[in-house]
Amino acid sequence: MDKKFVVIGGGTGSFTVLKGLKKYTDQISAVVNMFDSGGSTGKLRDEFGILPPGDVRRCLVALSADEDGTMRKLFDFRFGQNGSLNGHSFGNLLLTALTQITGSEVEAIKESAHILNIKGTVLPVTIDNSNLCAVLENGQIIKGETNIDIPKHDTKNHIESIFLEPEAYVFSEVVDAILQADVIVIGPGDLYTSVIPNLLVNGVPEAIKQSKAKKIYVCNLMTKNGETDGFKASDFVKEIEKYLKTNLDFVICNSKIGSKDLLEKYSKEKAFPVLVDAENLKKFRLVSKNLITEPELIRHDSSKLADEIIKIAEEKYD
Amino acid sequence: MDKKFVVIGGGTGSFTVLKGLKKYTDQISAVVNMFDSGGSTGKLRDEFGILPPGDVRRCLVALSADEDGTMRKLFDFRFGQNGSLNGHSFGNLLLTALTQITGSEVEAIKESAHILNIKGTVLPVTIDNSNLCAVLENGQIIKGETNIDIPKHDTKNHIESIFLEPEAYVFSEVVDAILQADVIVIGPGDLYTSVIPNLLVNGVPEAIKQSKAKKIYVCNLMTKNGETDGFKASDFVKEIEKYLKTNLDFVICNSKIGSKDLLEKYSKEKAFPVLVDAENLKKFRLVSKNLITEPELIRHDSSKLADEIIKIAEEKYD
Repeated sequence: MDKKFVVIGGGTGSFTVLKGLKKYTDQISAVVNMFDSGGSTGKLRDEFGILPPGDVRRCLVALSADEDGTMRKLFDFRFGQNGSLNGHSFGNLLLTALTQITGSEVEAIKESAHILNIKGTVLPVTIDNSNLCAVLENGQIIKGETNIDIPKHDTKNHIESIFLEPEAYVFSEVVDAILQADVIVIGPGDLYTSVIPNLLVNGVPEAIKQSKAKKIYVCNLMTKNGETDGFKASDFVKEIEKYLKTNLDFVICNSKIGSKDLLEKYSKEKAFPVLVDAENLKKFRLVSKNLITEPELIRHDSSKLADEIIKIAEEKYD
Repeated sequence: MDKKFVVIGGGTGSFTVLKGLKKYTDQISAVVNMFDSGGSTGKLRDEFGILPPGDVRRCLVALSADEDGTMRKLFDFRFGQNGSLNGHSFGNLLLTALTQITGSEVEAIKESAHILNIKGTVLPVTIDNSNLCAVLENGQIIKGETNIDIPKHDTKNHIESIFLEPEAYVFSEVVDAILQADVIVIGPGDLYTSVIPNLLVNGVPEAIKQSKAKKIYVCNLMTKNGETDGFKASDFVKEIEKYLKTNLDFVICNSKIGSKDLLEKYSKEKAFPVLVDAENLKKFRLVSKNLITEPELIRHDSSKLADEIIKIAEEKYD
C-alpha cells in the first residue's frame, strides 16, 4: 500500500484507526488535538506549562510496531490514583521529562516515536498553548476541554459552537502531511472535545480544502451526553462540514446495533446508538457496515474499520 | 581483556569504577546494596514496597553503552523538588513502573539494562527487604540508611558497628558472579552506608572468601563526618576486613592532595583527606597513585582508577 494517510482526531477513536491502519502501511500521520485539560495530562499541563501529552501518548502507543514490547507497556502504565504519583500515566511523565530535556514538545514526540519504534508519525495539530471553549444555546460559555468533556453544567443546553482561546495556528508539518495525503480520515471520537478542535486551528481547514486527498469522516457509534444528544449520522456530518468549510467525500457508519444488555448499560450514561439516516447523506459515498467489536463492547473494531478505509484508498468504492 | 570483574558498592564510588572499567570490558557485574532509604528512592520504597531503586539506577547509567543516548538522559532526569512529582528521578520511576509491570525487581533491572543497552550486569546484593542499622559507641542504635548517611545524632559518638534488620540473604546470581570473578573491586564509597552493607548480607563474605579472584579495596579520598572522622587508610581497610572475614590482596589509595581552596570547602563539611599510612598497610600490595580528577573536584577520576584496576587484573603489579 503506497498511499499516504492522515488521521485527524486524538482520543480513543484515533487509537482504533491507527492500530488498524498500521498493519497496512507506515505512511501514516496522526494529527492530534492539543487542548486536553483533564486527568494526568491536565495536571502536567498546569504544572510544567507543556502541551497536553495524553492524546499524543495514545497515538504513539497505537502506532508502536511491537505491541508486546516493554516500552509500549511502560507507556501505557499508570501509577495508583491515591499515591504520591497522582495517577500519572508513565508515558505522560516520559513525554514531560523529554520535553524538559529537549526543550521542545515536538522533539519530545520525535524521541518517543523513536524509543517506541512507531510506524508513521505523530504530529501535534498546533504547538500553541490554547484552550477549548464552548458556547451553549443559552449563551453560557464553558471554558476548558475537561469541563466540556465531563459537563458540570445542565446538559439540556446543547453546544451551539466551540472556539479556541487564544487562537492557535497550525504546526507546519501538519500542513505538509495534509497536502501530501491520499486519504484524510477524520474521527471517530468525541465531536466537540476530540475531533472538531483540530479544525478550529488556523490553517487546518485551509490545508484540507487544498489537499487532493479523499476526505473520509468516520461517524461515532453512540451519542454522548452533553455533546451529541439526539444526533443522527447526518448531524455529526453537518457539524464536521460546518468547521471544515469544505465537503467530505466519504462517510463511514456502523450498521450493526449492539446487544440489548450493552445498550442498557450505555443508556445509563445517556448514550444511544447513532441512527444512520442514509436519506440525509445522499451527497456522500456512504459506507454502512458492521464495524463493532465482538462480542463485548460497542467500540469500533480496528481491523474492520481499517479494511473499509483501505478499500476507499484502493478506490474499490469509486 | 577477558577477565571477569565484580564491583561491590552502590553509590557514586561504584559509578566511577564502572564508568572507567566499561571502556575495557563488558564482563562486569555491579553488585549494589539495597538498603538506601532517603530521597526519591526512600519515598518510592515506602509507597510501593519495592526495593530501593536509586543505586541500581546509578549503576545502570554508569554502564550504559551510549553515554549521549536519550534513554540515558531520561534515566538521569529529575523532576523539580517542589512540584507534584516530588523531585523524583525519572529512572527511579521507570524502575518502579517496571517492577509493577513485571512483578519483580530483578526483572525490572534486566529490562532496564536492555533498554539502556548496558555493558555488563547490575545485580541487587539481595532481594530481601531489610534496613540498615548502626550501633554508636554510646550504645545508641540508629535505624535507617538515611539517618546514618545524613546524621541527626551527635556525631561525636562514632559508629561501633552496623547490622541489617531483618537479616538478608544473598541474591543467587551475586554468588555466581563472585565465584566466577577474576577481580573483585570493593569501594570506593561511604564506608558504612554504601560499601560495608553489602558485606552484611548472608552469603556475600562466604562467596568472596571462596572466590579465587584478586580482592581489591579502593580507599576513599576524604573522610566523612559521622562515619569515618579521623580515619586513615588502614582504618578503612581494617573495617572492611572485619566484615569481609577474609583478607584483601590489593589496596588502591590516592597520593595526590587536592588544592587548598577545595580542601577548605570540604573542611566546612568536616571532611578531610584520608592519610595513606603505608606503614600500617604492609601486608597488602599497596597502589598509591594520583587518582583525582583535574582540576576541580576531589573525586576519583574514572579513567585513572580503571587503569590501576586493569593493571592489577593484568598482573602487572604481581
